[in-house]
Amino acid sequence: MTDLDALPTPSLLLDRDRFVENHARLASHLRQLGVPLRPHVKTAKSLPVIRYALRDQPGGVTVSTLREAAACLDGGIRDILYAVGIAPQKLADVAALQARGAEITVILDSVEAAQALRAHHAATGRGIPVLVEIDSDGHRAGVAPESALLLEIAAILGADLRGVMTHAGESYQCVTAEAKRAMAAQERDAALSAAMRLRLAGHAAPVVSVGSTPTAHFADDLGGVTEVRAGVYMFQDLVMAGLGVCAVDDIAISVLVTVIGHQPAKGWLITDGGWMALSRDRGTAAQALDQGYGLVCDVEGQVLDGLLMSGANQEHGIISRRDGQPWDLSAFPVGTRLRVIPNHACATAAQYGGYFLLSNHRPTGEYWERFNGFGVHES
Amino acid sequence: MTDLDALPTPSLLLDRDRFVENHARLASHLRQLGVPLRPHVKTAKSLPVIRYALRDQPGGVTVSTLREAAACLDGGIRDILYAVGIAPQKLADVAALQARGAEITVILDSVEAAQALRAHHAATGRGIPVLVEIDSDGHRAGVAPESALLLEIAAILGADLRGVMTHAGESYQCVTAEAKRAMAAQERDAALSAAMRLRLAGHAAPVVSVGSTPTAHFADDLGGVTEVRAGVYMFQDLVMAGLGVCAVDDIAISVLVTVIGHQPAKGWLITDGGWMALSRDRGTAAQALDQGYGLVCDVEGQVLDGLLMSGANQEHGIISRRDGQPWDLSAFPVGTRLRVIPNHACATAAQYGGYFLLSNHRPTGEYWERFNGFGVHES
Repeated sequence: MTDLDALPTPSLLLDRDRFVENHARLASHLRQLGVPLRPHVKTAKSLPVIRYALRDQPGGVTVSTLREAAACLDGGIRDILYAVGIAPQKLADVAALQARGAEITVILDSVEAAQALRAHHAATGRGIPVLVEIDSDGHRAGVAPESALLLEIAAILGADLRGVMTHAGESYQCVTAEAKRAMAAQERDAALSAAMRLRLAGHAAPVVSVGSTPTAHFADDLGGVTEVRAGVYMFQDLVMAGLGVCAVDDIAISVLVTVIGHQPAKGWLITDGGWMALSRDRGTAAQALDQGYGLVCDVEGQVLDGLLMSGANQEHGIISRRDGQPWDLSAFPVGTRLRVIPNHACATAAQYGGYFLLSNHRPTGEYWERFNGFGVHES
Repeated sequence: MTDLDALPTPSLLLDRDRFVENHARLASHLRQLGVPLRPHVKTAKSLPVIRYALRDQPGGVTVSTLREAAACLDGGIRDILYAVGIAPQKLADVAALQARGAEITVILDSVEAAQALRAHHAATGRGIPVLVEIDSDGHRAGVAPESALLLEIAAILGADLRGVMTHAGESYQCVTAEAKRAMAAQERDAALSAAMRLRLAGHAAPVVSVGSTPTAHFADDLGGVTEVRAGVYMFQDLVMAGLGVCAVDDIAISVLVTVIGHQPAKGWLITDGGWMALSRDRGTAAQALDQGYGLVCDVEGQVLDGLLMSGANQEHGIISRRDGQPWDLSAFPVGTRLRVIPNHACATAAQYGGYFLLSNHRPTGEYWERFNGFGVHES
């Protein structure tokens, strides 16, 4: 019996030793490349985690919601990049954060949004710094670096323009190290060429911001880039392990569950950790090795080879053999504690109000709260 | 411009008119069958919703977590069935809820859990009422109604045994009305035959509890059943519509999003509602009509034929034509508000702290809070 038996289930565990190692590894890599890190808050959404990730960095963060921005500001973090295209309706909330002391930068990729920013500046007398989002890989949003639209948007923004940003989300499809290195170069080149075009057109555009967890780890030359953004890197997950970005033993978060029943004929352990505890994310389903809803570990964190969390209802998890065959369940009686390593750190962590900290595989007694939700005004 | 433009995005909308209709429909059906409803809290997790669903029912609820149990008790609801197999470690929390006035019943399907209940009774001097979970469809948990295990468990429980419960989760695979009616009969028969065996063995076993949203709607004879459990029925969702349990226009929840960008070459509207706003649930992927991450409506709630939320990143949604072809995006400029009807009400609602209420397609000004999380002690 370990101290872990005193924790409720399901609950979210954060192995601080692994998190510290994960941060040290990426920070060291980027230091060698001469580029600072602007940690992305979207994965951890927790001030102690973010403060640790900032200890050897300039101090700016990336956020995916205004809720994260407000929570960071409440925690004394003022330099904030809100890295989701700004909706015109959110400008008043951004301005309110500025009034509270935030140095907040927004992103956009359309003439309409640029015009809304310009109108806001004209109406309020205060501008909001902007990065133009560049499409480096066809993944999602952004303007093409060679497009006329880039210069059209820049002309509308004028002095509020601060540079460019891009996110090579397609790096999640890059299996080989070579492919990830190539994607990192493509991400850098798209951002740099867009910045160069802006500068040639007379804009200062000092900021060249790039990043995804896979490209951040595999970039071998970030010349011209001024900052790298990454969030999943702090915790890592099975999707990253499947991509070769980390090892399974690097993954810092797991879900503590309890066995609540057996279905011997089917070879199923039933646990109290279902999809509400793991999320519905099945990110490894599209990878070479489908990990179901997660890998199963004993309470000490040792992976139990051949087992998988193969199914999930709302508050029921099904653990079975990877090959689906019946097996002897008697080693895991009702009441047994197990841990599940999730597919996707961001999605699983979002199901919880906070993290129970572990060090040396034991609870430290600390509980680090998360800030969930979307808007500035949400609690 | 409607009042909906004043709400933040993404946010969760609850159409009270539809919810009221959904409840009236199932309550009326069950009244005709002579069986009361024990609403399942797991979908709504909100006291005003649950109180409404109890207005014409005896007053007991079903919960999937001890957090729901504690929140119901805080709200004055004492008769609680905790319908996930009890872990021995949770008995102390259940006893604490009893001490605060809860009349809480737990379920189990193993000798080990029954022994833990008996030991708890002996150690504390107070028993906890128990229903034995019956496997009516091979879906998940429970003991076979004809098994020796049923009587073995009952003998351990003694006077703490109150009856049986079952959940025909396989009803989610029943497409035709005939199949759903047959599954409802199968669910009833499994529970009834188990209860009869217990009574023949000398146990009182007064409670025969069944339910799933599909079987609750399609049951045509519930003779011998003492209560029906259902939760999704209050809101309905695309999975239920795909099963023919409701119409799309019955679905009471939707997610309000804002268009934040265009990718014309791909035919993509980019919105600020990603998988954090909708959940990763892709429950319709296994149905005849895959609805992606959800159906798209205008801000008034009218379904926009041919559009689909086809992709999702954490805080980005992709809306495209169902056939994937490019189209004219100009009717939906940056800043346009849209609504997305989700696959799975339970999963989507769990991403939010509460509901903005609508009536007659307009906000009422009310915000109904949810209680998320798992344990008694979580906030």
